[in-house]
Amino acid sequence: MRKLFTLMTVLAGFCPFLHAEEGMWLYTNLPTRDIKEKYNIDITPEWLEHLQKASVRFGKSGSASFVSPDGLVMTNHHVGVGILEKLSTKEKDFVKNGFYAETREEEIKCPDVELNVLQKIEDVTPRVNAAVKGQNMSQELAEKNRRLVISEIESEAEKATGMKCTVSAFFEGGLYHLYYYRKYDDVRLVFAPESALGFFGGDPDNYEFPRYCLDVTFFRAYENNVPAKTEHYLKWSENGAAENELVFVSGHPGRTDRLKTVAHLKFLRDTVHPFTLEKIYRKEVISKAFGEQSEENMRRIHTDIFRWTNYRKRYNGILLGLQDQSFMAQKEKAEQELRWRTPKRAIHSRDSRDPWHKVEEVIDQWKSVYHRHDLLETGSGFNSQIFSYARQIVRLAQEQEKPDAERLKEYQGTAVDTVKQAIQAEMPLFQDIEILKLTDSLGLLTDKLGADTPLVKVVLDGKSPLERATELIQNTSLFDPESRKALMEGGLAAVNTSDDPMIQLVLLIDSSAREYRKIMEIEIDEPLQQAYGEISDIRFRTYGTSVYPDATFTLRLSYGQVKGYTETDGSQIPAMTCYDGLYARADEHHQIEPFALPERWLNAKPKVRLQTPMNFLTTHDIVGGNSGSPMVNAKGEVVGLVFDGNINSLVLNFIYDDQLSRTVSVHSSAIMEALKSVYSAERLVRELLGK
Amino acid sequence: MRKLFTLMTVLAGFCPFLHAEEGMWLYTNLPTRDIKEKYNIDITPEWLEHLQKASVRFGKSGSASFVSPDGLVMTNHHVGVGILEKLSTKEKDFVKNGFYAETREEEIKCPDVELNVLQKIEDVTPRVNAAVKGQNMSQELAEKNRRLVISEIESEAEKATGMKCTVSAFFEGGLYHLYYYRKYDDVRLVFAPESALGFFGGDPDNYEFPRYCLDVTFFRAYENNVPAKTEHYLKWSENGAAENELVFVSGHPGRTDRLKTVAHLKFLRDTVHPFTLEKIYRKEVISKAFGEQSEENMRRIHTDIFRWTNYRKRYNGILLGLQDQSFMAQKEKAEQELRWRTPKRAIHSRDSRDPWHKVEEVIDQWKSVYHRHDLLETGSGFNSQIFSYARQIVRLAQEQEKPDAERLKEYQGTAVDTVKQAIQAEMPLFQDIEILKLTDSLGLLTDKLGADTPLVKVVLDGKSPLERATELIQNTSLFDPESRKALMEGGLAAVNTSDDPMIQLVLLIDSSAREYRKIMEIEIDEPLQQAYGEISDIRFRTYGTSVYPDATFTLRLSYGQVKGYTETDGSQIPAMTCYDGLYARADEHHQIEPFALPERWLNAKPKVRLQTPMNFLTTHDIVGGNSGSPMVNAKGEVVGLVFDGNINSLVLNFIYDDQLSRTVSVHSSAIMEALKSVYSAERLVRELLGK
Repeated sequence: MRKLFTLMTVLAGFCPFLHAEEGMWLYTNLPTRDIKEKYNIDITPEWLEHLQKASVRFGKSGSASFVSPDGLVMTNHHVGVGILEKLSTKEKDFVKNGFYAETREEEIKCPDVELNVLQKIEDVTPRVNAAVKGQNMSQELAEKNRRLVISEIESEAEKATGMKCTVSAFFEGGLYHLYYYRKYDDVRLVFAPESALGFFGGDPDNYEFPRYCLDVTFFRAYENNVPAKTEHYLKWSENGAAENELVFVSGHPGRTDRLKTVAHLKFLRDTVHPFTLEKIYRKEVISKAFGEQSEENMRRIHTDIFRWTNYRKRYNGILLGLQDQSFMAQKEKAEQELRWRTPKRAIHSRDSRDPWHKVEEVIDQWKSVYHRHDLLETGSGFNSQIFSYARQIVRLAQEQEKPDAERLKEYQGTAVDTVKQAIQAEMPLFQDIEILKLTDSLGLLTDKLGADTPLVKVVLDGKSPLERATELIQNTSLFDPESRKALMEGGLAAVNTSDDPMIQLVLLIDSSAREYRKIMEIEIDEPLQQAYGEISDIRFRTYGTSVYPDATFTLRLSYGQVKGYTETDGSQIPAMTCYDGLYARADEHHQIEPFALPERWLNAKPKVRLQTPMNFLTTHDIVGGNSGSPMVNAKGEVVGLVFDGNINSLVLNFIYDDQLSRTVSVHSSAIMEALKSVYSAERLVRELLGK
Repeated sequence: MRKLFTLMTVLAGFCPFLHAEEGMWLYTNLPTRDIKEKYNIDITPEWLEHLQKASVRFGKSGSASFVSPDGLVMTNHHVGVGILEKLSTKEKDFVKNGFYAETREEEIKCPDVELNVLQKIEDVTPRVNAAVKGQNMSQELAEKNRRLVISEIESEAEKATGMKCTVSAFFEGGLYHLYYYRKYDDVRLVFAPESALGFFGGDPDNYEFPRYCLDVTFFRAYENNVPAKTEHYLKWSENGAAENELVFVSGHPGRTDRLKTVAHLKFLRDTVHPFTLEKIYRKEVISKAFGEQSEENMRRIHTDIFRWTNYRKRYNGILLGLQDQSFMAQKEKAEQELRWRTPKRAIHSRDSRDPWHKVEEVIDQWKSVYHRHDLLETGSGFNSQIFSYARQIVRLAQEQEKPDAERLKEYQGTAVDTVKQAIQAEMPLFQDIEILKLTDSLGLLTDKLGADTPLVKVVLDGKSPLERATELIQNTSLFDPESRKALMEGGLAAVNTSDDPMIQLVLLIDSSAREYRKIMEIEIDEPLQQAYGEISDIRFRTYGTSVYPDATFTLRLSYGQVKGYTETDGSQIPAMTCYDGLYARADEHHQIEPFALPERWLNAKPKVRLQTPMNFLTTHDIVGGNSGSPMVNAKGEVVGLVFDGNINSLVLNFIYDDQLSRTVSVHSSAIMEALKSVYSAERLVRELLGK
């Protein structure tokens, strides 16, 4: 049994004395001098710009890269598997059997995917701050002004450039950057391995090492129906990563909580993550039970099972970390240091002008609405795609009646187009799965709010969650994209007179949901941003600006070395695995799922060079969202593909550690070897090698 | 999607106008006249005594019967599977492969099983009531007196007869019976099928019909190392149950909540069962994840997975029922009727002398301690066999210092012997599983009480739940029965100076646990019993005594017919399945688990008479705990073996229904056919047929 942390050796995340390879660095603020000093490697502006523009943000939670001048995109199998599932049918199961387009014509268009490539960054902090820092400005006005100025900045930039422009806040509101993205929304499938390879070892091997996954999928970005011309793309390294080599990861870490105050971390520990896990446990159980009923069920729910088992392991690790009292003690110590080393300390710590105390106050308020906001507005009480459609249709109709600036954020400016597109997109949906999910989430809603709560009574309409979910799903017309489109185009009149039971349900409860959203935005998010902005100022004044902000699903660069580690029980974990280990592990488990290899792989064994490196470990500072990030060497060539962290790396959410935490990647040579010797994917091999 | 209830057609449980076949009848109060009138069948005292003494209570939650004069015991595979797992090793997996003792010498002694056979019933209500109904008696004194008089009655009877004697409360304290049991604790394994047959269809088919399970296991009771002579045993019916036949189930329904007040049911709905399910979800997830790591893990955790998937489906069904507002409305209506039709109604309903109001008040108090009592005293915060041993050892040492009457119930009189035996019994225990369970439950404790609670801090000792569980389990000596025995024999001195970390943990927290136990016993159980006693009086006065009490894991008789039903969607569910259906279902699922048949069954197919009835439905009023109950015909012959209810039967916990709820049994002919044609178990066949 390994120890999850040896925190006594780890410094707190926002300490100015960073660990060797700590940091999810903004492209605008890289520790180039440190890298030069320690590794004698020059990070030139050209090298950086090239890597930035070859880095791709994939959908809503993944990373990727361009790996050919013709828009070829590489990401993880687990990042693309949701798309594979949507493209699959009972007859053609791309998740189970994989896919390869022998010719460009065979590449399959994917529903509902968006790629974003960062082109330019602009600091807009002064303009945002100017809008919110008036004398005695109320929270409500400050929130509104902040929203307005951000929306203004974004739409000005969009009008000027035609690009997708987003203002991102860093340091919890201490810094605002305007990001210009080039957007691709015609994305086609080129290659995917069998899920048995993409997720070899399944839940048991997830977050573990040694590991044997070919967690890769290739897509292609198209523009005007032809492959996009991508000037900035990454070349393939001949040998891939070598032990101890310094390598770089360019990707989109989703979220870290390193700068959060202790009160905020305790809220995550005591309220947020226990509830997150409770929801995950339910979903894992009901998805598996549904999948076990038949092969066809399993095909349709496979991705969900993957998601929930993965999340469960991740959040379990995170929660265990937060519950470690030595971890919290360190965070407390570091916070105290910062709090008392600043001249601002003239303010008494119980004074509401003290930003740490302010955070504490806001968190108390948050606690009181957390579950209801999550159930009603975030939607965990209505886990159904049909419900989401219904709410989008209702809100779109209502918001369109208002001036742009007063609408909910996702219905403002050009963002509304994304909503409209999503409403009418074709999407494989299944009655039984919708009933399953809605029943479970209505049950959760009832459990948490109490069956006698008026809102729950309205929702259930005198029935049990199962009966009510069945009735709603069986009688709605929203499975049909045409019907959704018609309602959408009919606007408020059509919505208000609709006899669709799901639309009617949304109309009944949406004012409550909107109320919690408003509380969140005005009474929680806004004062929290202000308080963290002040803490951020104090941190800058105390430690200088050579620090990196928490992850926010924006592009970051991190650097690290290829390196194994020593477990706390003394066992040595090697840095790399090879293909021979894959075959050995499958045999060790008698080729039983999730360790079973497909026929193709068993047959190809004599051809596969078994000493090819397969997966490897590095010391990078990454986190969820980095999945699919390219790993490049000093020449900027692909040497690996990030797909996971080891179990110890879950701590990276809160604190950097280079003793036990490791990034796990697919070696570039493993990808090439598989494409050549197992899949005979010659067209793809030639394209990757630039031949 | 079927409707869980059609409650509009179902009468409330405590209504005097019972449904045709409603009732889990006490052997002392059977509706013999009704049965005679409706079915022209005479229930004679001899018939009844014979059935009673052939009925066996199996362990702590199952039912069984004697089926030969030589102590042969029949129960379900799923009742015996925990024993099979304990008897199994890596080399001999009786769960997976089944077992058959060709000779009596091959029968294997089972660890830690107790059978109880009811010999005599005595009404002791007046004596119990006399002890607690003094003028102005405090709850504390009433509770103590009730406990004392019960303990006195039991030990007097035990001394007089040498039998195991237990006072059982019925009608929530309206009636007290003294039950005399004959106890058998040398129990040996005779036959078990493969789990693939015992639990064919697994979770997907559980609580469903059509169904195809050979859910049977045979044990034998021994006395003085030879088979017990069991004068009262059930003969095997030649043809088994036939459609529409009236048949009887004699067994031990575990628990129903039909007489609970609405306030009490709402407490179950809003507090108890959501928490129960939350715990089950966690356990199902962690057991499955552990099992998936390797075949050997799966072998060791298989029974747990079975238990949690089964419980999850059951409690989900129960909770859905409670959340059905039409159900609750009916319960409310019936309660109002009873409340206002009694002369006692001179008392205002908000008056604390009103027993319904009293229940409500007590429930409010219960709510405030429910989770802490469950976590600390019931032990859901310390889910580890090693922890249980440690607590038993500590409490035994402490309780032995007190006069018998002042001890905790389980350490009084002869009960203490059971504890002592359990402490030193050999039991297969695994470090990794203990760490797994303890980690999860310490996590639950931390989530529910909050990581900063002093008690949680003491428990975790500055570590994460994983680290702490690992440390406790790796450093305890209590895996060794000798070491447990030595500590136990050392008494309080040994316990107080022990350096075993688990003993030390128990010493640190046990006063808190005992405090919650005391609150439960004095401030909740006792006033609740008194209030329900009054409600029970009112019910008797209003409806007469021809009613049956809630199930309490005491012997009951229920009667019903072999009958299919019509689903709410109109589909007809037939009353019986045959062996040909078993083979067809396995083929339909491509012989993939949980639908895979063992080689032996595939090979035997030509020999098996495929038209033999396999599983069948009846209208009996049963509930969990009835598993393994014999089903007999009017001649008292075995015609089936109860093993399940359909999904609609989960409602039986609260209300009887004969429209959709069905009992599911293995047909006696299926058992005989399998023993003959598949297992060639001739010795067993001869014994069952009395040849």
